Amino acid sequence: MTRIAILGATGYTALELMKILVHHPGAEIVAVTSRQEGNPHVAMVHPSLIGRIDLQMQDLSPAEVAARTECVFSCLPHGVSASRIPALLDAGCRVVDFSADYRLGDGDVFAEWYGQRHPDPGRLGKVPYGLPELFRDQIRGAQLVANPGCYPTTAILALAPLLKSGLIQPKGIIIDSKSGVSGAGRTPKLTTHYPECNESVAAYNIGRHRHTPEIERILGIAAGGEVDLVFTPHLIPMDRGILSTTYSTPIGDVSEEALLQALSDFYADEPFVRVVEHLPATKDSLGTNFCDLTVRMVRGRVLTISCLDNLVKGASGAAVQNFNLMYGHPETTAL
Amino acid sequence: MTRIAILGATGYTALELMKILVHHPGAEIVAVTSRQEGNPHVAMVHPSLIGRIDLQMQDLSPAEVAARTECVFSCLPHGVSASRIPALLDAGCRVVDFSADYRLGDGDVFAEWYGQRHPDPGRLGKVPYGLPELFRDQIRGAQLVANPGCYPTTAILALAPLLKSGLIQPKGIIIDSKSGVSGAGRTPKLTTHYPECNESVAAYNIGRHRHTPEIERILGIAAGGEVDLVFTPHLIPMDRGILSTTYSTPIGDVSEEALLQALSDFYADEPFVRVVEHLPATKDSLGTNFCDLTVRMVRGRVLTISCLDNLVKGASGAAVQNFNLMYGHPETTAL
Amino acid sequence: MTRIAILGATGYTALELMKILVHHPGAEIVAVTSRQEGNPHVAMVHPSLIGRIDLQMQDLSPAEVAARTECVFSCLPHGVSASRIPALLDAGCRVVDFSADYRLGDGDVFAEWYGQRHPDPGRLGKVPYGLPELFRDQIRGAQLVANPGCYPTTAILALAPLLKSGLIQPKGIIIDSKSGVSGAGRTPKLTTHYPECNESVAAYNIGRHRHTPEIERILGIAAGGEVDLVFTPHLIPMDRGILSTTYSTPIGDVSEEALLQALSDFYADEPFVRVVEHLPATKDSLGTNFCDLTVRMVRGRVLTISCLDNLVKGASGAAVQNFNLMYGHPETTAL
Amino acid sequence: MTRIAILGATGYTALELMKILVHHPGAEIVAVTSRQEGNPHVAMVHPSLIGRIDLQMQDLSPAEVAARTECVFSCLPHGVSASRIPALLDAGCRVVDFSADYRLGDGDVFAEWYGQRHPDPGRLGKVPYGLPELFRDQIRGAQLVANPGCYPTTAILALAPLLKSGLIQPKGIIIDSKSGVSGAGRTPKLTTHYPECNESVAAYNIGRHRHTPEIERILGIAAGGEVDLVFTPHLIPMDRGILSTTYSTPIGDVSEEALLQALSDFYADEPFVRVVEHLPATKDSLGTNFCDLTVRMVRGRVLTISCLDNLVKGASGAAVQNFNLMYGHPETTAL
Repeated sequence: MTRIAILGATGYTALELMKILVHHPGAEIVAVTSRQEGNPHVAMVHPSLIGRIDLQMQDLSPAEVAARTECVFSCLPHGVSASRIPALLDAGCRVVDFSADYRLGDGDVFAEWYGQRHPDPGRLGKVPYGLPELFRDQIRGAQLVANPGCYPTTAILALAPLLKSGLIQPKGIIIDSKSGVSGAGRTPKLTTHYPECNESVAAYNIGRHRHTPEIERILGIAAGGEVDLVFTPHLIPMDRGILSTTYSTPIGDVSEEALLQALSDFYADEPFVRVVEHLPATKDSLGTNFCDLTVRMVRGRVLTISCLDNLVKGASGAAVQNFNLMYGHPETTAL
Repeated sequence: MTRIAILGATGYTALELMKILVHHPGAEIVAVTSRQEGNPHVAMVHPSLIGRIDLQMQDLSPAEVAARTECVFSCLPHGVSASRIPALLDAGCRVVDFSADYRLGDGDVFAEWYGQRHPDPGRLGKVPYGLPELFRDQIRGAQLVANPGCYPTTAILALAPLLKSGLIQPKGIIIDSKSGVSGAGRTPKLTTHYPECNESVAAYNIGRHRHTPEIERILGIAAGGEVDLVFTPHLIPMDRGILSTTYSTPIGDVSEEALLQALSDFYADEPFVRVVEHLPATKDSLGTNFCDLTVRMVRGRVLTISCLDNLVKGASGAAVQNFNLMYGHPETTAL
Repeated sequence: MTRIAILGATGYTALELMKILVHHPGAEIVAVTSRQEGNPHVAMVHPSLIGRIDLQMQDLSPAEVAARTECVFSCLPHGVSASRIPALLDAGCRVVDFSADYRLGDGDVFAEWYGQRHPDPGRLGKVPYGLPELFRDQIRGAQLVANPGCYPTTAILALAPLLKSGLIQPKGIIIDSKSGVSGAGRTPKLTTHYPECNESVAAYNIGRHRHTPEIERILGIAAGGEVDLVFTPHLIPMDRGILSTTYSTPIGDVSEEALLQALSDFYADEPFVRVVEHLPATKDSLGTNFCDLTVRMVRGRVLTISCLDNLVKGASGAAVQNFNLMYGHPETTAL
Repeated sequence: MTRIAILGATGYTALELMKILVHHPGAEIVAVTSRQEGNPHVAMVHPSLIGRIDLQMQDLSPAEVAARTECVFSCLPHGVSASRIPALLDAGCRVVDFSADYRLGDGDVFAEWYGQRHPDPGRLGKVPYGLPELFRDQIRGAQLVANPGCYPTTAILALAPLLKSGLIQPKGIIIDSKSGVSGAGRTPKLTTHYPECNESVAAYNIGRHRHTPEIERILGIAAGGEVDLVFTPHLIPMDRGILSTTYSTPIGDVSEEALLQALSDFYADEPFVRVVEHLPATKDSLGTNFCDLTVRMVRGRVLTISCLDNLVKGASGAAVQNFNLMYGHPETTAL
């Protein structure tokens, strides 16, 4: 039974993580942290957890966390996470980091996209990217894993096999993504105020969404070279779910069947990627750790459509999948 | 052409009011106020108004407002509104007040429910309640009109005729109301954050919602005596619309047909109340100034079901209806 | 490992049941029936089940079902279910029936509310009502259990303890319920067509909803005498969730604290009823087998608010809870 | 006062058209047709029209329609519309056709995409396409106008000026569109059943949506040559609104500012196109005849984002705009 801490436990990814971990036979949540005053009970902050977790949130230092736990899930904000994690690692904890802090390859790219100096630049580029479908072996032995972003998971799972197989061009890729509102976090803002975003759809952060360099880096690894892409996220009036539609150029004379076969082959043994022939809907994977995807060839263009639950395979489910690999549990445990 | 000012113009009722007034042949919006810094253009705050209104929001004193305009719609918060309105009235403006400040009969009740001293208690009880279906004559000549609350309009329009006709008991009335989220205003809060209130329904403020004394006062006038009731509001995952289901006890041996006839007779000449035989849905009146209502008799209980668009007949449409009466326009102008 | 059949597997309750049972260590789904042509794969009808269940739907006779399975969950429509179940019982199967067929006490009441003769009237009144919180002992030994309706579960769990303790009057109870759209089933109809019911709320079936006699019967057992009530269901634009607000009259001089204590005491050892002090939202129990409830005293009236996920505690979760009792599994297994 | 008939009046576009026309000072609806049995009152089919239109739906022949009216809005299905319109034209009626029947250039393309022979191929290519921003002069004198599709309007308004000015390549254009559910019509289907499409997003009809040839034809006229594109529609859980994101390749060394200026110049005098600098949301144009659009340059790609209310500027508002042009009313009348 691994003793678990969850840092920054007031948001949606932490909530989803707790819901999953309470069913995990090899994990016991023993500490949840928050800077909220008064050490509120977890169930005060998340009423859905009443009767499921009996812990108070506390404002614990890394040392206090390390003293009580073996494995830490950090749901802290970008920049903050990497300022706490080194101490946890030094104290012997293993860490799954939900933030973007260890997903990029170097500190300059981080500074460019996140507008701040990286607190722990020496580790960048050496931390496994927590997408088991691509980096399972590295994750297995890791002390620290960078849990992927929700948008990147949809795009990478769809495109990486095609790039790896040399079936599509690494240049000029377009990723048009649609996300439910929970992806924007739990802090009330005008853009996520119900009467503003309900019954409406809009694009946001065009050309400057921070998942862009993350997708490029990982697809670059898959392609074995530079990848360039345009990433356009849209906000959709629903709680959960991301669907990404990508457009790329085939290399040579490849058929839709061959593309679909390449994806099916690549994911043949994967428990959480379902290559389907129909056009998947986000609802099909709602509440699950599945990513559903397919491919189409239209007028000489390759289209992929991939979708998942942003709080599960796009965040907390993936984190538990990584935890399972790190601790030698069957990869599907609790998922 | 009446020169109009709108005070407190950043919210949803002000937005809806502007959308209506731009089509009004007898009204010209010449000033909109807000304490937002930098005098933003109306269309910066409300992008839907781009190309429809060309005004900047300003932080104007009552004197400045009075110097430019003849009629003022106050969308200021409770308590604030009544601290500005006396100066406007003294300067000769006519005012439609969206706040609750002039809806109650005396300052003690106000203090009890709103937790503050009333800034202008002397006028309480003398200001016409802006429900033309009940108080048309008083509204016509008024300098100040208290625009009704959204919940009260649904409940009062359904129950007042039955109380007035002596068809139902004034005691033990239950009002179970369901409201869309725009009724909670435009300030982001956790309870109206999209992923919190979407796909969820909950009751709130049971036994202490501030519309309770307002409904009791106006129904008391209709009944010619004291009315006591339980009012339970619920938040529904939709933008607009309120539906109220009421339960009361019939007096004597009255049939469902007689109850329906009483309502039909009472509203026979009303342009904005539709007494229907089917069970109305809030969507039927969405974007309109209609209130739809019907009545049922079930196991010796009288049930009314009434609904409207909380931003139109429940707020800004009603305000324009009052404006039309105050200025002698046909009552349906722009509605 | 109990071999399971699911009859009438194309709808939402069957889907939810399958999602739960695939995680049950003591159950194996071996047959799913449907009259759909061509014996479609379960995952063709329910794409979310791809990779989770590998079975084809078949149009099986009761004899064929009985030959393959030990326990049958019937999701067949009212009237049809009771025409199939006797043969299954005779063949030795145990059955959890999702339909209303065995929930009422006699055939005349069934005929009055369901408009048809009951196919198996002799069993009426003898089949345990599958609400473990009230009838656990009877369920344990039963061969056939009548799984409760979704609305009734909310109302009964809130009111039964108060009636049983003599804290509220059994007459004049009002139940005002709000339900998500999945409760209306999976057959497309105009009333559940997205652009009709989205952004709208309406009451339906006032005074004639078929859950009325079911609630009255079970509350009557709790009260030890006749109960009379008005039940008003409303359709809410969300997928899942029911919230019921009830209004009743206290007996004697009972306080809100005493009422809350009575509920807390009654459910002290129950794994799936959470008596809370705050006003619960349906989202708190979304996707779980919990029923959350509380009580308020307002102006001499007792109000209860109770909510649950209509597809889990309101249907398939309750069915698995009953299955667990019937087969001696821990009651919370897979829930 | 022009006497108006509306053919096929049971759907959403007809409903929206009626809501607009009742406020039009130069139009009087005198006939509404439907094949529904029993000549139901318009308000029986559309409860929101109670008290606003007092007409019965009738199953009228073209001759009967022509005898009563001067102008006909046909909301009949594709294929059916063009089988009725010739008789109306021969009888002297002017017609605005909501179907796709007269939007394409020749019968072979129609047959290819609509799977049927065109009933009136001789007129194809000669009927003005009812987008006043591009074809105002032709619409003015026309007897028959082909009202544009909702998706095409978003895409064409965004791309036509850039193609016309030679700022983007006519090849390899990608149009990724997101539409609310009302665009799918009023006939209940599983895909538009509330619990299926709520809280979900999916692509549909990839590579074979019928709006593809319509967009290509009109953009081809703007470009003065062949245009080729990929069009991917997605269904979004909201009632109304379409947002299209397009991706194209700039010609030469053009800046974002120059692209925005080109759009602003092109639409400088247009009452219903708002070229904005921010990223527009569909809600900004909800219930209005506006199309909001903007442009971005990202990594050497031109992105346009355009949106509108599919039932207004995407259908019935555009139809009234065309009617206004045809009959010499100010173009914004009733809009």
